[in-house]
Amino acid sequence: MTQHDLVRELRETNNSKIVLFVADGLGGLPLERGGKTELETAKRPNLDAAARDGVSGLSVPVLPGITPGSGPGHLGLFGYDPLEYRIGRGILEALGINFAVGLNDVCIRGNFCTLDPDGTITDRRAGRPTTGRCVEIVNKLRTIQIPGVEIFVEPVKEHRFVLVFRASGLGDAVADTDPQAVGVRPLPAKGSTPSSEKTADIVNQFVAKAEALLKSDVPTNGITLRGFASMPKIATMEELYGLRCAAIAVYPMYKGLARLVGMDILDAGQTLTDQVSRLKTVWNDYDFFFLHYKYTDSTGEDGNFPAKVQMIEAFDAIIPQVRALNPDVFIVTGDHSTPSKMKSHSWHPVPTLLVSEISRADGVTEFSESACLRGGLGQFEAKHLMLHAMAHAGRFGKYGA
Amino acid sequence: MTQHDLVRELRETNNSKIVLFVADGLGGLPLERGGKTELETAKRPNLDAAARDGVSGLSVPVLPGITPGSGPGHLGLFGYDPLEYRIGRGILEALGINFAVGLNDVCIRGNFCTLDPDGTITDRRAGRPTTGRCVEIVNKLRTIQIPGVEIFVEPVKEHRFVLVFRASGLGDAVADTDPQAVGVRPLPAKGSTPSSEKTADIVNQFVAKAEALLKSDVPTNGITLRGFASMPKIATMEELYGLRCAAIAVYPMYKGLARLVGMDILDAGQTLTDQVSRLKTVWNDYDFFFLHYKYTDSTGEDGNFPAKVQMIEAFDAIIPQVRALNPDVFIVTGDHSTPSKMKSHSWHPVPTLLVSEISRADGVTEFSESACLRGGLGQFEAKHLMLHAMAHAGRFGKYGA
Repeated sequence: MTQHDLVRELRETNNSKIVLFVADGLGGLPLERGGKTELETAKRPNLDAAARDGVSGLSVPVLPGITPGSGPGHLGLFGYDPLEYRIGRGILEALGINFAVGLNDVCIRGNFCTLDPDGTITDRRAGRPTTGRCVEIVNKLRTIQIPGVEIFVEPVKEHRFVLVFRASGLGDAVADTDPQAVGVRPLPAKGSTPSSEKTADIVNQFVAKAEALLKSDVPTNGITLRGFASMPKIATMEELYGLRCAAIAVYPMYKGLARLVGMDILDAGQTLTDQVSRLKTVWNDYDFFFLHYKYTDSTGEDGNFPAKVQMIEAFDAIIPQVRALNPDVFIVTGDHSTPSKMKSHSWHPVPTLLVSEISRADGVTEFSESACLRGGLGQFEAKHLMLHAMAHAGRFGKYGA
Repeated sequence: MTQHDLVRELRETNNSKIVLFVADGLGGLPLERGGKTELETAKRPNLDAAARDGVSGLSVPVLPGITPGSGPGHLGLFGYDPLEYRIGRGILEALGINFAVGLNDVCIRGNFCTLDPDGTITDRRAGRPTTGRCVEIVNKLRTIQIPGVEIFVEPVKEHRFVLVFRASGLGDAVADTDPQAVGVRPLPAKGSTPSSEKTADIVNQFVAKAEALLKSDVPTNGITLRGFASMPKIATMEELYGLRCAAIAVYPMYKGLARLVGMDILDAGQTLTDQVSRLKTVWNDYDFFFLHYKYTDSTGEDGNFPAKVQMIEAFDAIIPQVRALNPDVFIVTGDHSTPSKMKSHSWHPVPTLLVSEISRADGVTEFSESACLRGGLGQFEAKHLMLHAMAHAGRFGKYGA
């Protein structure tokens, strides 16, 4: 019996409210052996109070030692095994620009490149055009028509764009046309299944028309494509848990990930205060609220330890306003660690706390990596977090008689 | 997606060095309730320092409560699920005497026994002959020839020998001829698949010729055979992790296990000092070093608590010389526990420490069973240890975007 089968069998409905507040890349490392992590350095009276009131632990995003991207990191928190549900790069790119991906879409990450007169690549990023220039070229590509397929071209940033083909029966098992090298020609698209050959044929038509159109647009006169991907077949969180779910996230990528599991995407404004205002206005309309806070990750990626500390303190300051709504289950966690020391995502387990009237106290008095190590949730796989959420919300019946 | 698929997808190459130092049977038990284990009793300043510098935990070799032999114990540490990869007894016997097992070999554990004139077994160990006598009888058996198959007979010790048949298309699904009882005749070999019937036929010819040859050699006038096994199909560690791996082990069994996963087997001399000298001379030639120390297990098996303490202290004393090489990842663990109190392998989780620049501190200040229980690695499945090793060595890319 899979976890999802179990959830469907046991789930019950009541009026409880669950808040999942994700501080992206929350976990960290000390800069020097024997020092404190970003979280341990930050003043965090409200997170500490929540840890005292609830039960804590450390979330392992995928498996020990495995560092997830944002996709698998969030899927795990939503209760979808990240090793089972994989989201292709093209889909993530499309989600990241808030493109409403449909079930008949094949999404592709595109790069503008510079081609020599003989068609070989001389610059894989086309001299890093401005985003304004990217938009101009994308507008040219939007004029391309191919019978039987709807085509979307969307600018991302600099040399990057998203290409979407919409038609029924398009496979996504298409090899990248990006040779990941200069001095060679972009590869022709090749599908490894009949439905993917159909996609590859469309791709090759598109590329030929694009190169003709952009002929005089050196250095942005060519394109390479990679990460061909369709929407994974994935039950929505409402189908799975019976929860009406709302996402209150500022950044497109996280809105996109929430859309992937069927959440309603609400206008979240730009700040934590905006997000909490939205939360208050829709409190009665949903059962489950996913709030996402980006800056604990981005400051970690920048390698800016003091800035990450500051972002944690800003995050801490908003906590009382959320708890004032009296959610039946209040969870704070991260999708992965992003230690400033590493300037990147990492595998290190992520501090997590859960407060409910029926959480079992564990003697943890502060919210930190070292304190969570002794917490009552133990070190747990992220995909199990929603089981805790549902249980503490009284939304699971008994398994077996 | 299996762990091995994941590893192959994420692995990257760099110049890092990983040392896996296995103290066989490291974990123990106090002799009396409330007392200290062997490790807790030993003076171990260097292991304690490593625990302070790194992250600790307890390794569960197979599953809770499951005691492994050396084969599954080590396979787990190398990242091969011991429940999925099984190594037959015949293979282990052959590896244990440093026999270079080939892909077309069926290996068998043999015992000399005493047969009555009517062919029934009167002593299953042939009166425990000397090893010298074992060699003599083995030399006789080496004269046996059977068309179409190469035959190897190798002495082990006392009544034990190894028999290997080498020919293509030999199955290993052959039932033991050892009836595990006296007063009955050895069983005829029977194969349960066509290729194993072929093996069984060869076995029966061999046994008939052996009994004819040994007719006048009472009490070593018969043989029983068990543990028919071919080499398991197993990816090498280099194929899997992209690591150039060296084994520096004194005992044949551990060289054999390392050979099974494709490590280079280096001359390790006889002592820890010899082993570390070898490590230094080949430091630039490999990425991964498996060092094996036997005496923590053998003293435990002997039930000699003070001797095991002493062996741990000798082990502790060599640690600084290994750490002086500045491995990027330094791991100390065991393949299982061997409590002197039990005089045998046991299932008890094994103290483990990992030191790297990016290991997250856990407040553990000593290397002992009780301290490791509060360590940051938690209680983990041995098969996940290599994921930690690869991650801390910076040898894994991100999973998903």
